[in-house]
Amino acid sequence: MTTWVRYTTADGSPGFGALEAGQIAEHQGSGYLDAVATGRRIALGDVRLAAPCTPTKVIALWNNFRALGEKLGKAAPAHPLFLIKPATSVIGTGDAIRRPQRYAGKIVFEGELGIVIGRKCANVSVAEASSYILGYTCVNDVTAAEIIGEDENFAQWTRSKGFDTFSCIGPAIHTDLDWSAARVVTVLDGSERQNYPLSDMIFTPPEIVSHLSGDLTLYPGDVIAVGTSIGVGSMKDGSHVTISIAGIGELHNTLTP
Amino acid sequence: MTTWVRYTTADGSPGFGALEAGQIAEHQGSGYLDAVATGRRIALGDVRLAAPCTPTKVIALWNNFRALGEKLGKAAPAHPLFLIKPATSVIGTGDAIRRPQRYAGKIVFEGELGIVIGRKCANVSVAEASSYILGYTCVNDVTAAEIIGEDENFAQWTRSKGFDTFSCIGPAIHTDLDWSAARVVTVLDGSERQNYPLSDMIFTPPEIVSHLSGDLTLYPGDVIAVGTSIGVGSMKDGSHVTISIAGIGELHNTLTP
Repeated sequence: MTTWVRYTTADGSPGFGALEAGQIAEHQGSGYLDAVATGRRIALGDVRLAAPCTPTKVIALWNNFRALGEKLGKAAPAHPLFLIKPATSVIGTGDAIRRPQRYAGKIVFEGELGIVIGRKCANVSVAEASSYILGYTCVNDVTAAEIIGEDENFAQWTRSKGFDTFSCIGPAIHTDLDWSAARVVTVLDGSERQNYPLSDMIFTPPEIVSHLSGDLTLYPGDVIAVGTSIGVGSMKDGSHVTISIAGIGELHNTLTP
Repeated sequence: MTTWVRYTTADGSPGFGALEAGQIAEHQGSGYLDAVATGRRIALGDVRLAAPCTPTKVIALWNNFRALGEKLGKAAPAHPLFLIKPATSVIGTGDAIRRPQRYAGKIVFEGELGIVIGRKCANVSVAEASSYILGYTCVNDVTAAEIIGEDENFAQWTRSKGFDTFSCIGPAIHTDLDWSAARVVTVLDGSERQNYPLSDMIFTPPEIVSHLSGDLTLYPGDVIAVGTSIGVGSMKDGSHVTISIAGIGELHNTLTP
């Protein structure tokens, strides 16, 4: 089991490594799968963590938890329902969620599990899919909620969720998470707002990767946000949101005017 | 005025250059904006054209032509309505549109103008927007039409349009196109199916770039497909589709089982 992080050192150099006993074991390589330990150890306090991967795209699922689907009265889908959030929307833990200059409306948090792809894959089966998953991370799938329904003919999912800084990812990638026993916990300004079991997912991670790999080729570092459950809510400018999953860690971000 | 193309030579080397009197004037540089002519000239017949840019994302607009909106009874939107097609969907002229392995349904062509971004931009005004546009190309915004309405609660625009090979782009980028006088012509297996004026656009290219730059940062090479008008229709396996705009050239693709 490895817990991967990416970071920037005090002199501005990027790097990546494995969390071990509160330190980072620095690694080198073209990616996580061919990474080799350099032997150097860095104190966590000496770096600034970055998003733990650099996705070419973030795929965000909608209506993938039974509890939320039942609350909203939506039938379970036959295939994962998704939109694409661009690479420009990705930030890491500690980075600011920036309010779009041209949007004064409601901005909501959505705490989610993120699947991180390890190897390029297309048209893989459910049985094969797990071997293409590098690991799991936390995602805050930030949404400018008032935009979604603004046009009566076209739900604006991509626009409402695609703004710069609206995909918070991190703090780490856990390569061996037992997601079926894990919970997503979201805390807004010190108050717990979401605490739901990942076992309530409609499509499991291997099913999601199999289905999506039939729709579009997935690349190493691509992130699939598997959808959220009950408890999503609004952030005020200055609100601090923490998304955590035991084993992965805490993803911290503040909405900044 | 420059007409840019990207290509692969017979020995497999990638390159780019300007079309001049039926030849390619080879250029070098990190991109089109700092390109310098090498002096070498290559016959068009000696290369295989590629997509003329490498987008980080393709943004596809919906309901941006008055004639189609009126036919469908849809009111003009207040802001461009869009979805994101991933980089994995991009192909060039002559490349095969591949039917997804897991989809046996109707696949439609949509002939469109494509705006190619020249410089990174965020939150630019309409007056500033033109200076961020490198030029214009042709797009076939291919769509697995039966998927869009499959789920009653969530229109699957991204999935239906995001498959690998579903964004045909090319053959060239025209840096000085008078789009207001140009028409998009789509020919399916020798029969003209679309022939509509770009002057019928609801949001013009500078308006589109200004609006979208407030939603997400645009990067050099990003393509905005400005939406289609009347005449879209179905392709059979083996169908050959040509999208052309005078000055840009002809974009040729065949749907392959």
